[in-house]
Formats: sequence, C-alpha cells, structure tokens
Amino acid sequence: MTPYAAPVRDVRFVLEEMLEHGSLALPGFEESSPDLVEAVLEEAARLSGEVWAPLNASGDHQGCSRQDDGSVTLPDGFAEAYQAYAEGGWNGIGVAESLGGQGLPEVVASAVQEMLHGANMALGLCPMLTAGAIEALAHHGSEEQQAIYLPKLVEGTWTGTMNLTESQAGSDLSKVRTRAVPCPEEEGNHYRLFGQKIYITWGEHDAAENIIHLVLARKPDAPEGNKGISLFLVPKFLVNADGSLGERNDVTCASLEHKMGIHGSPTCTLSFGEGKGAIGYLVGKEGRGLNHMFTMMNEARHKVGIQGIGVAERACQQAFAYALDRMQGRSPRSGRSDCPISDHLDVRRMLLSMRARTDALRALALACAAQLDQARHASDASERAAAQARVDVLIPVVKAFSTDQAVEIASLGIQVHGGMGFIEEGGAAQLLRDARIAPIYEGTNGIQALDLAGRKLQRDGGAALAGLIGDVEATAAALEQTPELAALGESLAAGAGDLRTAMAEVLKAGSDAEHGADAVQAYATPFLNLAGHVLCAWQMGEAALKANAAIAEGREGPGGPDPFYQAKLQSADYAIRQWLPVGRAQRAVIEAGMASLAAFDAASQ
Amino acid sequence: MTPYAAPVRDVRFVLEEMLEHGSLALPGFEESSPDLVEAVLEEAARLSGEVWAPLNASGDHQGCSRQDDGSVTLPDGFAEAYQAYAEGGWNGIGVAESLGGQGLPEVVASAVQEMLHGANMALGLCPMLTAGAIEALAHHGSEEQQAIYLPKLVEGTWTGTMNLTESQAGSDLSKVRTRAVPCPEEEGNHYRLFGQKIYITWGEHDAAENIIHLVLARKPDAPEGNKGISLFLVPKFLVNADGSLGERNDVTCASLEHKMGIHGSPTCTLSFGEGKGAIGYLVGKEGRGLNHMFTMMNEARHKVGIQGIGVAERACQQAFAYALDRMQGRSPRSGRSDCPISDHLDVRRMLLSMRARTDALRALALACAAQLDQARHASDASERAAAQARVDVLIPVVKAFSTDQAVEIASLGIQVHGGMGFIEEGGAAQLLRDARIAPIYEGTNGIQALDLAGRKLQRDGGAALAGLIGDVEATAAALEQTPELAALGESLAAGAGDLRTAMAEVLKAGSDAEHGADAVQAYATPFLNLAGHVLCAWQMGEAALKANAAIAEGREGPGGPDPFYQAKLQSADYAIRQWLPVGRAQRAVIEAGMASLAAFDAASQ
Repeated sequence: MTPYAAPVRDVRFVLEEMLEHGSLALPGFEESSPDLVEAVLEEAARLSGEVWAPLNASGDHQGCSRQDDGSVTLPDGFAEAYQAYAEGGWNGIGVAESLGGQGLPEVVASAVQEMLHGANMALGLCPMLTAGAIEALAHHGSEEQQAIYLPKLVEGTWTGTMNLTESQAGSDLSKVRTRAVPCPEEEGNHYRLFGQKIYITWGEHDAAENIIHLVLARKPDAPEGNKGISLFLVPKFLVNADGSLGERNDVTCASLEHKMGIHGSPTCTLSFGEGKGAIGYLVGKEGRGLNHMFTMMNEARHKVGIQGIGVAERACQQAFAYALDRMQGRSPRSGRSDCPISDHLDVRRMLLSMRARTDALRALALACAAQLDQARHASDASERAAAQARVDVLIPVVKAFSTDQAVEIASLGIQVHGGMGFIEEGGAAQLLRDARIAPIYEGTNGIQALDLAGRKLQRDGGAALAGLIGDVEATAAALEQTPELAALGESLAAGAGDLRTAMAEVLKAGSDAEHGADAVQAYATPFLNLAGHVLCAWQMGEAALKANAAIAEGREGPGGPDPFYQAKLQSADYAIRQWLPVGRAQRAVIEAGMASLAAFDAASQ
Repeated sequence: MTPYAAPVRDVRFVLEEMLEHGSLALPGFEESSPDLVEAVLEEAARLSGEVWAPLNASGDHQGCSRQDDGSVTLPDGFAEAYQAYAEGGWNGIGVAESLGGQGLPEVVASAVQEMLHGANMALGLCPMLTAGAIEALAHHGSEEQQAIYLPKLVEGTWTGTMNLTESQAGSDLSKVRTRAVPCPEEEGNHYRLFGQKIYITWGEHDAAENIIHLVLARKPDAPEGNKGISLFLVPKFLVNADGSLGERNDVTCASLEHKMGIHGSPTCTLSFGEGKGAIGYLVGKEGRGLNHMFTMMNEARHKVGIQGIGVAERACQQAFAYALDRMQGRSPRSGRSDCPISDHLDVRRMLLSMRARTDALRALALACAAQLDQARHASDASERAAAQARVDVLIPVVKAFSTDQAVEIASLGIQVHGGMGFIEEGGAAQLLRDARIAPIYEGTNGIQALDLAGRKLQRDGGAALAGLIGDVEATAAALEQTPELAALGESLAAGAGDLRTAMAEVLKAGSDAEHGADAVQAYATPFLNLAGHVLCAWQMGEAALKANAAIAEGREGPGGPDPFYQAKLQSADYAIRQWLPVGRAQRAVIEAGMASLAAFDAASQ
C-alpha cells in the first residue's frame, strides 16, 4: 500500500502564495511567523505520515471491540498514536493561548487537520470531537467548568464527544427526549441524566483518562421543541475538587455500530442513567442547548469538509502511485507495448480529475479558514462582520461539496486500480468506505444545502454570496487579461454568471409566501452543487494566476524549473474547462423548476 | 431490511407498451406468447423475492471460506438457492431450444436476470458466468464438446467460469502466460495447462457437481501477443465417455480474495498444473482464443449492465421504504410537525432521481436486448445486420453507463437513509459495496468507452450511432407535437444535437493519423457519458409518450386511474429536464479539448 505523504508543498502554495499569509498579519498572531508555520507543517507531515498513516489499514481491518464490562478496545496502536499526538501538543495548536493552546491561525490548524485525516480518518475523529467540546465550553461554560475541564481537553489528556442524536431525533433535534432531572439542593448544583444517545463518535475508548460528554437533554418541566433543550456536561469519570478523577459516572457504552467504514472509530450507543442517573452539569443557559451546540457545529462542519479533502488527497496519492507503477497495454503515445497505465489518456483523465478537484477543494477550504481568522481577529468590527458573513456562506459549501466530491474522488481512485481497487488489501476500497460517512454526519449534505439556500441566502438577500461572486468575476477578468489564461477567464465568467442567475431564482422562489419553503428545498442541493463548482473554479483561477506569474518570473525548484507550477496550470485548466461545465448544468436543473418534485408522490410508486 | 419485490409492473410496461412485444413476432419465438412471458416474469419474481433475496444480507455477512483442502464453502443457503434456480429450469430460459434451453427472447431473459441480480447479485454471478461458457461452447465448441458439456451447463447441474486475468494480464490480455502443453498422442487429444489465473468468479464452490473452466492459454510454440492465445476447456472433474464424472483435474483454488462487496461470490485464484498439469481441451481454433472469448464477452457486458440495474432497483426500493417510514422534521408542505422524510422535497429529489434513472437504464437495456433478438432472429439479413450494428453501439453504453449510474444510485440510497445508511445492518451500504465492482469487471468502463468512441464509432464513421440519434430526434419531435410534453421534446432535441456534435468531434479527432488514438482516449469517457444520458432520456421520452397516451385514454388500474402512468410522466420529466442537462455538459468537456490531458505528467506530481 502506498505510504501517505502529507501535501506540504500544495498547502504551502495555498498559504504562502494564494493567501499570502494574510492570517499572520492579524492581531493576535504576532508570534506566528512564516518560519514557524513551515516548521509546524513539516512536523505535522512527519506525525501523520510516520505515526498515524501506517495504522490506517490495520485499524480498518481490526476495528473496535466492546468488552463485556462495556469498555471499548481500540485497534492496536491507536491509543499510542493518539498519545503521540497529544504529547506533541497538537491538540491545542488552533486553540487560543488564553485557553492553554498555541493560538495558531485556523488556516494552519486546518491544514494540519487535513494531514491527520488523510493519514487516518478514523483516528482523526477523536480530536475533531474534542475540539467541538473545547469550543462549546470556551463559549458557554462557566468559569469553574472552564477551569476544571478545558486544560485537560486542550492538552488532550481527556477527550470530548457531542451527544445529539437519539433514535427518533436525527436531523430534527427538537425531538430529543433524554431527561435531565435537577438534583435535590443538598446533593449539589447538578442534574441526573436518563436516556439513550446513538451514533456517538468516540463515545467510549481506552486512549484517554477521561471522556467529557456534551449532551443535549431536556428538564422534566421543559417545553416541547427546540426551546426545551439544554446542554449538559457529563464526564465519564467525575472530577474531584482537586482535579483528580473520582467515581465512574452512570454512562455506559451499550453497543458499537458495525459500519461501512471508519472501523477504527468507535461509534457508540451510550446509555445515560441505567442506575441512579448520570451526573451532569448545565452548560450555558437553560433552553439554549441547541444554540450552544450550533456554535461549535459550524466549525465542526468546516472540519468535516477538511476531512473529506484529507481522504481525497490520500486517494490521489494512491491512484497516482498505482498508475505509475502498473504496466498494462500499449501506449498510443510512445508506442511502447508495455507502458504504465498513466500513459493512457483515459487513466490520465481520472488522475487529473482527482488531482484538480482535490487541489480546488483544499484551496477553497483554506480560503474559508482564512476568513474564519479574519472574522475572529480583524481589528475592525465591520471587517470581522464581513468575514463572518462569508464564512457563513462558505461553510455549508465546504462541508457538503468537499465530502460529496471526496466520495467521487475515492471512487475514481478505485477505478484507476481496476480489479485491485475492489480487493481490500489494495487499500483503495477503504478510502471510499471511510469517505462515505462524511456527507452524512454533522448535518447531512441536504441539510447543508438548505442552510445555504435557505437561511444563509435568504436572510441577507444574497449579499454575502453576491460579494463572493464579485470576487469570482474579478478573478475571471484578471484571467481574461492574461493571454495564455484567457480561455479559463471566459469559462469562469460564465460560471459566475450562472451562479448569479441561479441565486436570483432561488431568492425569488424563497420569497413566495406560500411555496417558498418548498421551493428552497427543491433547489437547495443543485444550488449548492453549482456554488461549489464555481467557487472551486474560482480558487483554481487564482491558483493559475499565481502559477503563471511564477513561471513568467522563472521561479525555480530545487533542481531547475519547478514542475509544480506547470502541474498547477494543468490542474486549473482541467478544473475550469472540464469540471466546471458539469457544475454549470445545475443552473438548467434549477431553471427546470420544481413541478416534478412537488407532484411526485413516493407512496404511489 | 426492506424485502425485495421484483419490478414486474415496470418490466411489463417496457416489454408490452414500449417494445410492444416486438421480439415475440420474430421467427423462432412462435411458442412464446405474451401470457407465457407474463407467467415467466411472475414466477421469476417469486423465486427472486422469496428464495434469493432473503440470502442477500446473510451472504454478505458470512461470505465464502476456503478450506484447507482447497474446497470453497458458500454462505448458508446459497447452494440450495442455486439448486432451486437450476431445478426450476431458469438457467436455460434464454438458451436456444436446440441446445436444450427454453428459447425465450433475450429481452425476457434479461428482465429475469435483472430480478435475480436485484435479489442477490453475488449469487446471480454464478449463472452469469455459466451463460458465458454456454455461449462460447455453442459458438466454438466441437460437436463432441457440445454433446458432453452443454446439456449439463444448460440445465445448471454444472457451472462455468471464464479464466482470463493473470496478475500481469488484466485489461491487456495479450500478456497471458498460462501454458498449454500438447500431450503425447498416445495420451489423447488434449493439453496440460500450467499457470495461475486471478479474479476467477465462482472459480470454486460447492453448489454444483462440476465446474467447467474456459481458460485462455498459450501453446509453448505460440507467437507473442494476441495471436498466440487459444481457448481451452478445463473441467474440475474429468468427464468419462459415459458422461459420468471421473478424476479430479489438476486445478485448485489457491486463495479467495477479500473484497469490498459481493462477499457471497467466491473470487478465486486458480492454480492450473501444480502436479502433472490440468487436462484441457482446445475450444475452437488455435490462436483465436481472444476472439472466441470476445464472442461471449459482448453479451456478458450487457448482463453486467443489467446487473447494475438490478442493484439500482433494489436501492430504490430500500430508499423509498425508508423514506416513507422514517418520521423526521416538519413538512413545509403539510405543516405537520412530524412527517415522513419523503415529504421533504430534498429527499424527494433523491428518490425521484434514483427512480427516474433506474427506469431509464432498464428501458435502454431492454431496448438493447430487443435489438439482440432482432440481430439473431429477424428473417431479413439486412435487418439482422442493422440490429447488430445498433447492439454493438449500445452494449458498451449499457455496460458502462448502467454500472456507473448504479454506483451513484446506491450511494444516493445511503444518503436517503442518513446515519442508518452507513450502518451495515441497514442494508443500504451493502448495495454500494456490491455495485462498486460492476464498473470494473468484464472490461472496465474506460475500456467500454474506448470500445464505443474508438472501434465502434470509427469503423462505420458513426453510421449506427447516427441512426440511433435519428430515432432520438424523432421521439423529440413527437414530444414537441404533444402540447403537455413539448418542454421534454425541446430538451431531448437539444441533447440529441449535443451528441451529434460531439460525435462529429470524436470522429474528426479519431481520423488524425498522428494523434487520433490519443484523442479518442481523451474523449472516450465524456462521450460515452453524454451518449448514455441522451439515450436514456430518449427512452424516457418514449415512456412519456406511452404514459401520456394511456392517461388520455383513461386506462385504469385495478382500483381506478392507474397511478403508474402519472408516476412515469414525473419520472420522465425529471430524467429529461433535470438529469439530461448534467450529461449535456459533457459536450463542453469534449469541446474543451485534450491539451491538458496530453500535457499532464502524472510522474511530476
């Protein structure tokens, strides 16, 4: 199986040449120099390539197992690999220094996350969930809660989970039934939780001393619906006043799911309160549980997009290595009777398609991360607000589009392998099986599309997206003014036009008092798909401009002309002229209207 | 898990209303009445739904196992389910009566195959391979070989395999190295085979008395390349003169592959000649092995397409059942606070997309089967030739497009299930894992595209495809003349125009002496993709015309107006106005040219 090599070169291109290290210029990042970022990326590449990646296949094969006492055993080596990560200080790299982290920009933290997920997605989920718990406590926890839990979570000694789903409450969390009963005052200022949560990622495991569950539940007197839901902190082991671990709390792993992929990530059904009730502490305000959860969910969604990109990158590396190594058939180009299959243009088409899409998705996700840095750190409030508005629009696109594309890229990776792609030992199959969860969790991609076409677009009349489209048009104009890139400019401008037209259509439909909600639902996924293609093509247009300039300047690699820039131009050409048209078709889908969907009765089939 | 119900209603619509039972009017099918076909379909539905389908999940879970003696144990129930199939006479339904079969039209046999694959794809592979062996022997076997082997293969007492691939010879079979050494004359008129074949589907199992391997191998003095390859028949057990089984031949299962899916289908590495050599008999002419193999491969490719459609149909049924049952979220339409998720238009979009595509793929595959019947049975030689020319163009489309789409449809099925889609117990995941092999075997979909855009298109200057496009245009015109379907007609006509333009582009590129082969490779997959969309939309246009007429006539179902026709109109509307545009984008992909592919150097990445 091909070893994983973190894409440091391309990440550096995006951070240094495309984003021009804009995040480092923001207040609060004075200590993050380009040299430091480079060192962090190199070190993350080492950890991901040497420590995490070698466990990816064995973890898939072995999976997790639940013991009779309810404890969960991880695949061999996972606990040690997690500890190497925590001891290296990686868990806190993106966390503010005031909370004990290293306070690196999100754009750097995101790049590191991609490497870890590319190396081992199942293991990468553990810190991803912990980050959500840190986020929730940092925003909504009491000072005492922060003091007790944050240091351990930030250093990674303890891990965190998000307990949302119940069997009747999936996409619709208003149906949560887990009960949180206030304890008698003499017992203390806490609650006893009773109920069952499903699909809890890393809900139980043996890689950390304690697990901090953040749980949505309902007080007995709470109203129905969203407003009755509060957020509670339920530690696996209660924490004594001196910070030492106390009694085992009344929360247990009732079972593990048998999943299609990410076998190394324990997906648990957690039972709260099989005995006296699991002790839990209210986090933030009563009745505001969903809002508090969504604070962290927005960023978790960005991270899931990043995760998709990590797997896509690994699929690329594996497919390229196989295609360069596998000899088969006569080359129509060189005439060699036995050539590497990468000589066949149909195989090359698959490889370039995988590479161009992965590069594009990465550039967009990191551009979004850079906006996140702006939204948090820009000195000017209006700049922060403008950046946040862009982040709000970009995040559903990064989550849904990156993960949908990751599934396709992983599937193409299988196809490049031919028969070997279907054999588990080849490693390509696992990547598709792993990737397939990402369009589902942290809000299905359909939910992301509704978030974009509904809430995000309708609330500002499309202002934030229109701003982004304006930037796309500016990039298109710059390409058109560059003779050798003019064809890319034309194609990108046409894509921007489609997105503008489709946006107007979705806004108009959404404003219809009677059918608006339906229409937005009908158009949401095609619209997100179109937006994803156009925004990715935009990033590749920017990449082409940078690469073209570098070539014109004669910028060199270690041993002569740097082939990176030439490859980037080809990748951009493919993305804009061969991939974008497929996305542009979604305009026609939207213009075809929603009549067939509205009339369709699934029950009559 | 949702039980499988064979799509008898839709199959009957295609056979009776769309194809107007044209095959039954051909010479040789005098005894196949519409009533008989109906009875066959109903009985196949029973076998597939009641006997085969219940073993699909358990077969996946249990898989096959190889014992120390090299024998292979199938999942529980598989041998009995296969026997029920053979004893019911199903193996011979499409085989000519002169060979001991029932001589039903291909269009009926194909419909039955879809049902069996939809019920249990892993088990369906066994008779699919046997059919290939029957085909090869019927065309190329000696009278003696036919007398000894065909009756048992046709009745299904023995099963067959195709032994092509070796580790260095996959898509390029000219690299086959297995040796066939002629035996001394006193020993008999046979050969001893030595070598190893991989990926042999149902290469060893315990469901039949004997297994007849058809093996590509090379005589010691044979020339290099394709022309040195001959076809040999190697029985697992030698057959005595009286037809009884004799000695075990020197062919053994060295190992089983661990695959992503179709776990119930044993994929074997077969060793020939670990002892004195496996006794084999030359089939057909020396040096013509590849040609003989391709005789049957063309039809095997059609069957793989059918297989994809079977899995797609099952994915539809499962997704519909789940979406109608799963309550979640508030309906923007009825306002109900807890509605089946099929009420949400975004879910409905996925369901309709799955249904419309599956219907379209089925109609196209059966239209191709009807042409196969014409090609074999039409009384006029020129009619037979014209039908064969259409078959030649349609088969790569049916194989590649149906299987690519089946993967997407199965993946959408997972998405409809949300979290449950990723859990193996839900059953949706298996369908994607199973479907994923179909774009790979019997010639990868890239090979199919080369076959279409290269050999099939270039050899007649596009004449056969142009004829099909003419039919598409005629359907578009008929739609345009039907006021309520005029929008479909416009969209279909535009698609036909795209295909015509793209065809001209590919023909022109292919005629370039220097770069032709490269250009055809570069354009092949986008071209096949475009052709698949247009031809499927064509079939749905035909379906819309029939459904519209039925509604106009007030044709009724058992209890009033038949909702089938209304649903078919919606499905056609979706296919032509929302799905076709995505395919039409491939014209732009082709027009963008091949420069980026030709310049792309995978090694420089």
